[in-house]
Amino acid sequence: MRIIYLDNAASTWPKPPGVKEMMAEVLDEFAANPGRGGHALAMKASKTVFRTRVQLARLFGIQNPNNLFFYLNATQALNQAIKGFLKEGDHVVTSSIEHNSVRRPLEYMRRTKQVEITYVEPRDDQRFHAEDFDRAITPKTKLLVVSHASNLTGVILPVAELGEVAKRHGVVLLVDASQSAGVLPIDVEQMNIGMLAFPGHKGLYGPQGTGGLYVHESIDLEPLIHGGTGSQSEAIEQPTTRPDRYESGTVNTTGLAGLLAGVTFVMEKGVEAIRAHEWELTKRTISGLQEIPGVEWYGPGIETERVGVVSFNIAGVDAAEASFILDQQYGIATRAGYHCSPLGHQTAGTEQRGAVRVSFGVFNTEEDVDALLEAVREIASAFNPA
Amino acid sequence: MRIIYLDNAASTWPKPPGVKEMMAEVLDEFAANPGRGGHALAMKASKTVFRTRVQLARLFGIQNPNNLFFYLNATQALNQAIKGFLKEGDHVVTSSIEHNSVRRPLEYMRRTKQVEITYVEPRDDQRFHAEDFDRAITPKTKLLVVSHASNLTGVILPVAELGEVAKRHGVVLLVDASQSAGVLPIDVEQMNIGMLAFPGHKGLYGPQGTGGLYVHESIDLEPLIHGGTGSQSEAIEQPTTRPDRYESGTVNTTGLAGLLAGVTFVMEKGVEAIRAHEWELTKRTISGLQEIPGVEWYGPGIETERVGVVSFNIAGVDAAEASFILDQQYGIATRAGYHCSPLGHQTAGTEQRGAVRVSFGVFNTEEDVDALLEAVREIASAFNPA
Repeated sequence: MRIIYLDNAASTWPKPPGVKEMMAEVLDEFAANPGRGGHALAMKASKTVFRTRVQLARLFGIQNPNNLFFYLNATQALNQAIKGFLKEGDHVVTSSIEHNSVRRPLEYMRRTKQVEITYVEPRDDQRFHAEDFDRAITPKTKLLVVSHASNLTGVILPVAELGEVAKRHGVVLLVDASQSAGVLPIDVEQMNIGMLAFPGHKGLYGPQGTGGLYVHESIDLEPLIHGGTGSQSEAIEQPTTRPDRYESGTVNTTGLAGLLAGVTFVMEKGVEAIRAHEWELTKRTISGLQEIPGVEWYGPGIETERVGVVSFNIAGVDAAEASFILDQQYGIATRAGYHCSPLGHQTAGTEQRGAVRVSFGVFNTEEDVDALLEAVREIASAFNPA
Repeated sequence: MRIIYLDNAASTWPKPPGVKEMMAEVLDEFAANPGRGGHALAMKASKTVFRTRVQLARLFGIQNPNNLFFYLNATQALNQAIKGFLKEGDHVVTSSIEHNSVRRPLEYMRRTKQVEITYVEPRDDQRFHAEDFDRAITPKTKLLVVSHASNLTGVILPVAELGEVAKRHGVVLLVDASQSAGVLPIDVEQMNIGMLAFPGHKGLYGPQGTGGLYVHESIDLEPLIHGGTGSQSEAIEQPTTRPDRYESGTVNTTGLAGLLAGVTFVMEKGVEAIRAHEWELTKRTISGLQEIPGVEWYGPGIETERVGVVSFNIAGVDAAEASFILDQQYGIATRAGYHCSPLGHQTAGTEQRGAVRVSFGVFNTEEDVDALLEAVREIASAFNPA
């Protein structure tokens, strides 16, 4: 049975041509430790990591590639940003649809550093409005942190407007681009994004084990990880030079080489073209689902653009069971549950039951959507006989 | 020119057969997100990660594989161990040859949490004695943290005896196995090791981007990274179940599959056999170096076993220049500098000039050593004419 993979919001698959080959080349030819030796193999490794940094800087409009740091995943990047930036008693404004990778570090800071948090809700149109964040800002507010797009409903937050808000109030805007990097246009300068966290293995089509954080050079963070950097080894303290200050220990050279191939693929394809493709598939999915009796789907309608994510439930079937049937009987990979986003579920009104989520990547087709809709139709009618 | 790679203490190269193939299989067939979905591809990814956990548990004598957590590198593992364990005002005993990945987190805890640190020195025989650590322990001591072997001189610390010391005083022993995992026998139960941090890309022959931490189940750490775990998504706090509590965000599935191949290779070869092979090469290197006029090498002599690391200097040549000549003229990859281990340099008396380091892996041969010795002889005589 051919697998129809509709779980791209968790990790994109398949990966484009070149990713595996780049990684194999690194393993075969230069798996030495970048920045940890002057020999030719180590230089080759360093150069590959730097090329990945440069390519990502181009994609995100970052002026100095050394302001971009590599981590295991977006979660580590977000922890570095949040815990490295906030100080005792600071106030943070965030949204009610944040992933646990934002919410849990924030709640940890509330518990240990008396940080105050305001969660902004969407309005009745299921959209977030920049004015609501603006109003939540107080003189104690230091950070505005938002997901660029929800991993549950796909709803897009008005990041450019929030950048204006942040600028006006002199607070830093941190954007979690887990569902938007490679899918929505991002320009950190134009959008006044002070910090940008992103995974390498989702919309950038790199392998797992990669992620990164951009930090504007005016922002000084306490490093979350202390250790060897290959520079200023004799000092007791972390070096102040970037990226070394924020990249202790050996980076994932092999994975970053794969990420370079992924980002290059995205840039050749064009973010706008990828976005348009995924939006077509998303509209087709929502339009199809709303014609199936007993199916409930979440988030705004097709009049409001979102990223390629649709969550739904089928009456009479548990989300986990529906996802299991889709996988086992139809070969359609989806995800059921809470998607690490309990606030999003409260917002969507699905906190008791979770939801089945489908999410699209660049390799999905209209045929994939039609196969999904056909499967959902069959399951819905099996569990809801007329 | 054939490259003779003698920088295995930074990262082993080449990797054994199977590593690349395992990684390619993951990328081709199941790069879905482990633990983040119930579909078949995600299950396959979860299973691979679990198999790696089980294999490492076998290697290190760990009873429950879920007490082993995966990170980007050993540095992140050490930060999790040190910062997650120590509390305000605790006392730590450590050695004078620690890597910056131990020293900098400790010094950070001194600066921010008033943690007290005692650095134990080697005796005149250049070896560390368990009694000296024993004597350094006070009623306030909570942690004993040591490198299993120096990344500068290869000297091996008496970990089993230190385990006895730790047990007797009721303190936790944390071992940095960066230079020993896969090279020296390690059994966490027999050696009373409470926490063990290790890299995946050195003696375990996996790719970069992998590392791990074992934590005995009686030890509760504050997680360093908070975020999504795929379990208990609805809770504001990290889940208490292991490994989820300590593994927020997506793990490096592809890299961990490569690590599985690397660890399996090590176990088939046998740690004792690898150790014997590297010790033969090391003895040959030291014996050869001590016959070359103008060459100074560091650490104990061949009567004292060490891991496959030898650091040296050539009179009249800067370490960086010697390393550069070895690379460019002879195709021999070595490392010059401080090796992220300034305390080790103070101990060895090389803090002003650094040193050239050679380090062996399982694929090095006697011919590699002889080529190195011949090259060093030529360089020494060129810079020190009779």
